[in-house]
Amino acid sequence: MKIAVSGFGTVGQGVAEVLLRRRDFLTGRYGEMPQIVLAMDSRTYAADPEGLDLQALIDRKKETGSVGKTGYSDSAELLSRTDYDMLIEVTPTDIKTGGAGLKNITRALESGKDVITVNKGPLALRFCELIGLARKNGCKFRFEGTVGGAMPIINLCHENLVGEHIRSIRGIFNGTCNYILSKMDKGQPYEQALKEAQQLGYAETDPTNDVEGYDTAAKVTILANSVFHKKVTVNDVKITGISKITAEAVAQAASHNMVIRLIGEVSETKLEVSPRLIPVGHPLSISGTLNIAQIEADLAGPITITGRGAGKIETASAILSDLIAILDERRGHA
Amino acid sequence: MKIAVSGFGTVGQGVAEVLLRRRDFLTGRYGEMPQIVLAMDSRTYAADPEGLDLQALIDRKKETGSVGKTGYSDSAELLSRTDYDMLIEVTPTDIKTGGAGLKNITRALESGKDVITVNKGPLALRFCELIGLARKNGCKFRFEGTVGGAMPIINLCHENLVGEHIRSIRGIFNGTCNYILSKMDKGQPYEQALKEAQQLGYAETDPTNDVEGYDTAAKVTILANSVFHKKVTVNDVKITGISKITAEAVAQAASHNMVIRLIGEVSETKLEVSPRLIPVGHPLSISGTLNIAQIEADLAGPITITGRGAGKIETASAILSDLIAILDERRGHA
Repeated sequence: MKIAVSGFGTVGQGVAEVLLRRRDFLTGRYGEMPQIVLAMDSRTYAADPEGLDLQALIDRKKETGSVGKTGYSDSAELLSRTDYDMLIEVTPTDIKTGGAGLKNITRALESGKDVITVNKGPLALRFCELIGLARKNGCKFRFEGTVGGAMPIINLCHENLVGEHIRSIRGIFNGTCNYILSKMDKGQPYEQALKEAQQLGYAETDPTNDVEGYDTAAKVTILANSVFHKKVTVNDVKITGISKITAEAVAQAASHNMVIRLIGEVSETKLEVSPRLIPVGHPLSISGTLNIAQIEADLAGPITITGRGAGKIETASAILSDLIAILDERRGHA
Repeated sequence: MKIAVSGFGTVGQGVAEVLLRRRDFLTGRYGEMPQIVLAMDSRTYAADPEGLDLQALIDRKKETGSVGKTGYSDSAELLSRTDYDMLIEVTPTDIKTGGAGLKNITRALESGKDVITVNKGPLALRFCELIGLARKNGCKFRFEGTVGGAMPIINLCHENLVGEHIRSIRGIFNGTCNYILSKMDKGQPYEQALKEAQQLGYAETDPTNDVEGYDTAAKVTILANSVFHKKVTVNDVKITGISKITAEAVAQAASHNMVIRLIGEVSETKLEVSPRLIPVGHPLSISGTLNIAQIEADLAGPITITGRGAGKIETASAILSDLIAILDERRGHA
């Protein structure tokens, strides 16, 4: 298996690290190690048809800030020039246009390559087209890490719960908002909690995507398409963020033994992101940066799952899970 | 797919009901409906090589207390006389000897049949032998419902988390004990809480298996074997039950903002069932009859899952999940 990796920031480096850590497992299971034959960051690339030295790649990126010495102008064109079997697409999410990720995934699927991504933009905007392209060209296309990071949710619904009619999924899918709201529970005003989240690296300098609910909306869109077979984009989601929540509102909730949480919900009739009052002690009253999903299934009943929604190794672990699933399917292991 | 069902109590009837409810789904996915060709309860059986009428079977069992008019003396011998592809083994758990379930599963695997079971006894006593027999004879052998009922845990670890090193699993795997302990949190003495659990049908007339921790120990044993690849039986588990927990102990825990919960734990070095002090608000402080498992994975980090640990349709839903997985593997769907 020859892998191209587009994006070599935190997650891309995590993927290389996880592949190194699982060398024995992967070699044992498949008889050979999947090789990264192309790694691209935002400006440069490194390529080796025999497989790049992953440790050297990680070290070079750390030392020089780049994966290679050679620049490129068009990542999709670079992909077209490369001999590979699978694209791992981990460029940053662009929720307005789909960005480079959309171009890379489209080019890979058009060329009959399997794709794993944690990039929410392309799926939040063009889910149906991309799935259609994958089907048409016989490609495996997996994206477990787009929702909930290391928390299993998409493959859980597709595989373990495939015989269920899933009535609804409600959850907390943005650790940054939950961190801010948890701090507000303890009396911090919004601006101060946001600043602290930024200092800790949980929130970006421009926190709009997180705090205005767009990130959660992208995840809800992906669940709506992949689990509920709806044909919707992020623009169909009714979105309210957390930036207008006041300390007074949080205090008033607390006086009724409630907290405010940013809940994403998808069901047959609902596609919504909004701050909601949650009773203290309710599973969705969870504090901190964890993600949580409540799945309502018709036979199994309620199933709740929590896990880390972000992190270098955690996100890479979701990619590893998708990689193993594809390798198993491709090679007939089961 | 011709299915033999051994055991036609609550869970067996649930299986028939779930198959009826999923007729369209199964027929659509596989082109034909899996047929139950043999159904046995504790005394009688019904057989039809073309497939039994499931609604008539359920109705007959309800009206007459039996699935058929013909008795049998040896269920394993009856299996040997039947043409079938898969055994669904749902006779009651016998944790001391393995009971009829052990004989039925052994016979089925020896004959090269696939097996799905929710019967904990055979696996808690003879895990390695049964897995070995399945491998030797090329049989699929699945048992998701033995631990946590409808809560996905075994297949979750085997499939979604197969690339992880799982460090430990801790959880509440017995809803009866958790119901009793939750009632004791509210000031009820043990005996009264147990009696109430019995009246509600959560606890059996002889509650020993539940309250002395043997049921939890069986589940921990199954996790130790299937997830941690240990070769242990229920007799290797260090077990303390809840029958000696006093109202005073619960009150003292409460004064430190703690509750007492019966926790099953398995790790590389631990195999234990014991009542533990859990801080209020901790995921394991869960109240009522739900089951919960905390999985500690080396890459993904902590993953927590909760779901219904028992119930007719809920347990049958775990069997449906195993059935779909086997049918997918057998017919190359993925």
